[in-house]
Amino acid sequence: MYTLADYLLDVTKYLGSDEIFGVPGDFNLQFLDHITHRHDMKWIGNANELNASYMADGYARERGFATFVTTFGVGELSAINGLAGSVAEQVPVLEIVGAPTTKVQHNGGLVHHTFADSQFKRFIKAHEALGLKASFLTKDNAINQINDTIHYIYENKKPAYLVLPTDLVALPVNDNLKANIPHLFESKQTDVSQSFETITSAIKTAKKPVIIVGHEAQRFNLGDAIEDFSKHNNIPVATLAMGKSTVSEEFENFIGTYNGSISDEAINRFVDEADTVITIGAKLTDSITGGFTQSFGPEKTISLNFDNVTIYGERLTTPYNFEAVINQLAATNLNQNYDKVVRPQLASNELKATDNKLTQEFYDRALQYFVQGKNTLVAEQGTSFFGLASQQLKANTNFIGQPLWGSIGYAFPSALGSQFANQKDNRRTVLSTGEGSLLLTIQDFGVAFKENLTPVIFIIENSGYTVERVIHGETEPYNDVPQLNYYTIPHAFGATDKQYLFINVDTEKDLVNAMQKANDIPDKLIVIQANMGVMDAPEQLIKTGQLFEAQNH
Amino acid sequence: MYTLADYLLDVTKYLGSDEIFGVPGDFNLQFLDHITHRHDMKWIGNANELNASYMADGYARERGFATFVTTFGVGELSAINGLAGSVAEQVPVLEIVGAPTTKVQHNGGLVHHTFADSQFKRFIKAHEALGLKASFLTKDNAINQINDTIHYIYENKKPAYLVLPTDLVALPVNDNLKANIPHLFESKQTDVSQSFETITSAIKTAKKPVIIVGHEAQRFNLGDAIEDFSKHNNIPVATLAMGKSTVSEEFENFIGTYNGSISDEAINRFVDEADTVITIGAKLTDSITGGFTQSFGPEKTISLNFDNVTIYGERLTTPYNFEAVINQLAATNLNQNYDKVVRPQLASNELKATDNKLTQEFYDRALQYFVQGKNTLVAEQGTSFFGLASQQLKANTNFIGQPLWGSIGYAFPSALGSQFANQKDNRRTVLSTGEGSLLLTIQDFGVAFKENLTPVIFIIENSGYTVERVIHGETEPYNDVPQLNYYTIPHAFGATDKQYLFINVDTEKDLVNAMQKANDIPDKLIVIQANMGVMDAPEQLIKTGQLFEAQNH
Repeated sequence: MYTLADYLLDVTKYLGSDEIFGVPGDFNLQFLDHITHRHDMKWIGNANELNASYMADGYARERGFATFVTTFGVGELSAINGLAGSVAEQVPVLEIVGAPTTKVQHNGGLVHHTFADSQFKRFIKAHEALGLKASFLTKDNAINQINDTIHYIYENKKPAYLVLPTDLVALPVNDNLKANIPHLFESKQTDVSQSFETITSAIKTAKKPVIIVGHEAQRFNLGDAIEDFSKHNNIPVATLAMGKSTVSEEFENFIGTYNGSISDEAINRFVDEADTVITIGAKLTDSITGGFTQSFGPEKTISLNFDNVTIYGERLTTPYNFEAVINQLAATNLNQNYDKVVRPQLASNELKATDNKLTQEFYDRALQYFVQGKNTLVAEQGTSFFGLASQQLKANTNFIGQPLWGSIGYAFPSALGSQFANQKDNRRTVLSTGEGSLLLTIQDFGVAFKENLTPVIFIIENSGYTVERVIHGETEPYNDVPQLNYYTIPHAFGATDKQYLFINVDTEKDLVNAMQKANDIPDKLIVIQANMGVMDAPEQLIKTGQLFEAQNH
Repeated sequence: MYTLADYLLDVTKYLGSDEIFGVPGDFNLQFLDHITHRHDMKWIGNANELNASYMADGYARERGFATFVTTFGVGELSAINGLAGSVAEQVPVLEIVGAPTTKVQHNGGLVHHTFADSQFKRFIKAHEALGLKASFLTKDNAINQINDTIHYIYENKKPAYLVLPTDLVALPVNDNLKANIPHLFESKQTDVSQSFETITSAIKTAKKPVIIVGHEAQRFNLGDAIEDFSKHNNIPVATLAMGKSTVSEEFENFIGTYNGSISDEAINRFVDEADTVITIGAKLTDSITGGFTQSFGPEKTISLNFDNVTIYGERLTTPYNFEAVINQLAATNLNQNYDKVVRPQLASNELKATDNKLTQEFYDRALQYFVQGKNTLVAEQGTSFFGLASQQLKANTNFIGQPLWGSIGYAFPSALGSQFANQKDNRRTVLSTGEGSLLLTIQDFGVAFKENLTPVIFIIENSGYTVERVIHGETEPYNDVPQLNYYTIPHAFGATDKQYLFINVDTEKDLVNAMQKANDIPDKLIVIQANMGVMDAPEQLIKTGQLFEAQNH
């Protein structure tokens, strides 16, 4: 018998969910049966729901979609911060929440995982307050609600939230529905010709344009289209750190990762000298603009976003579709004869390791050498992100960070989610995190070993929250964290000796040797503890920290 | 200079916050300075925000109040499930959220920890959806908002949530405010004489009444009053599991922990034979009534709750105050000459340990012997809770569980919070949890060792979520969890050898010996791993599980 649960799972499978994350609870167990009884899907039981939501977010950034399952009240609220991060950074994740039966709700039963106040809509309302697409499935309308939700995720690349009462799990549905799934993703064609004309005319008025790419372009997979547009017209391309790796960083017109006034001089020159800045799918938020120090204002900007366009400060009102316009730009030659882009040298050609104590500066450069095109680099929003976002990546490297939402602890489960998504392409995820951040979500080491994941994990051990010491309270005890014995963590979380290698790193040479070992051993999870000074922080963090501290008064 | 932050902290200190829990973030660091610079208060930095909220909840259940601090967006949403638990089970916790400055909000800045949509009220709205008392402090009204919030917590024993923009932290305020703090807690006197008369008249119509005590009585500290009322009138007293330890379980009229039809026969007889059930501060929720199998309906019940009274199904409408009425009952002799209560024998007199493999049944009885009047027993909402809630506790033992909200992972941080609150009275907290639950929040072992806490922690290792296997999916992989090496957990989380003792327990004798050692060593954190069968569960859980499964269809 084909059931509602089967249909929901067929849809998620179609969008790329080979793994489904989450935590069991008595209101979702019946639904989970439909996952574990399939041969084309795997249940990944997370240590907790927040970790599940982060892991799904990391998976979705690789696959373009992810699903996770929680239980009513307790489970969904534990995950809400992760799902909010997917809202903030536009990541297409579906959360399915198992709920009490329609009958129990109708009768107002004083059941567990509620406030015993007979109100069953409190939690969906909390999700709606965050601007989430949220649906409470009903017997009569469940198929439409699912289709509507899935279409929304696909069209917007945004997360959504579905509440599934247990009595609907086994609801029989027409099995013809399955054949119809591909049609759910047929988009209505918008005639964007008028908008396209206005946009290209505007660009043509520029003598010296530059393109700055943001995260929305990554979500809609528009990197190649942007490269083509750039190449046909000799327009230099930078990315924001939120959007990094959308465009190949070995692309001939790529000029680097722009971060407001604190970017490298060579990148700044391109942006400062441009008479028009074309932003594509970009949000100019504080952490990725050196605290709002970008050198251009709206009057110099053509801003092509997912849900709006502004041209030199004027909002475009004609019919528009982000993907359609950017894809059309890809094939466009503006015939403006802009000067050929002379790329700045972004990465240094050599890495000389000494016996000196490891510094953040050397670490960042060493990771630039280490991370290859078959890697995803995940950088936690601490010293890792601020040091690594400005490094040049090889072609085909993915980069994951969370600079807008900036939830500490995000990067570790996200990296594991990325690794799950990367397994079948034989790609390896490399995580750089700090010991303070890792602690928030450390328990999914258990999942990593249970599922035999083999990422490379760098833990920067710098005796506390260095990212915060830089901003405020350098020696305050609130910036201290418990000091763990990291070499015992893998074994404590269930690893056998064959599953992992732990390497402690104090000097530059130690680090380079550890990286070599990690490369030589692709079939183990590698933990590299990189010991650094308490206040050793990347230059871009120090500058950003000063700006943040000034704003906090 | 006396500042708003100082005033807010003086108020929390007055209510019992010697420790303040939380996680730093760049929007709360300035506020944290005001904590760390005090000599009468200690900052406890949690591993993550959910753990902080659970720890505060456990602390508040001992102290009557607790405070924790998070940062905007990411931090508060990570904690929201814990705070929701405090709503559900009526625990007086204050969350203070550090937020961007009033100016940044006013300008709609695209700052981190938001959705970069210039909306700063999304998160407070999500909290309001949960029915929380929530205030976003403003410069002009902050003192009133604080006073109003604190008064609300004190009067209702419910949690509340305050958002504190960083620019208000150092706002100068009148230092006379400090002297006024005690007056914040003066309650308006309600004339309850008419209600009291109606209630006592109703009770007098009963030939054979029984009292059933719930959690609200514990929150308002009414245990002694209820005992007095019972003693003066020979009325037997049971508690619900949510409310357990409100009344001394060595009290002469105490008849046991009532759990609907699945209670012990001796308890059931009292309740079934009663012609009137007087519930005091009780909610008859599924997990504590054997799935709504209580033997009495509204027509037999006088229900005295915090916010309402119903007498044999009729709502009382005259002026009423819960505390006032119960305290007045304490001194009341109804002159009904009820029969003297003949207490059932609740605890067995002997505990004979053999070399047999440890069972849940023996474990529960052994804990009953082990837990003393100088202990708080915290039971995780799995096999631990269902096995331990029905055991008889010694006088002066506190019991903490979370049967309504039922968030797995709650018990460990809650137990640490309880231990923080208990330190100065030299009381020791005993936790019973399962390995599946512990994993959700395990990282606060780091805090336990950093702060030299010395609770006794029993980890039931039964190869997965036994509580769920009993309900549904006995052999399904979603009920498996990563298997950790628990003996290495303390060291991994930073313990020195002197700080802890780990004991592995396979047999009944092992368990009794381990308990003896725990008693002999009060100055170390003791971890006892109790290995049990996969499907070894307390009888009350098995019966409850069957009822839950039936309801889920």
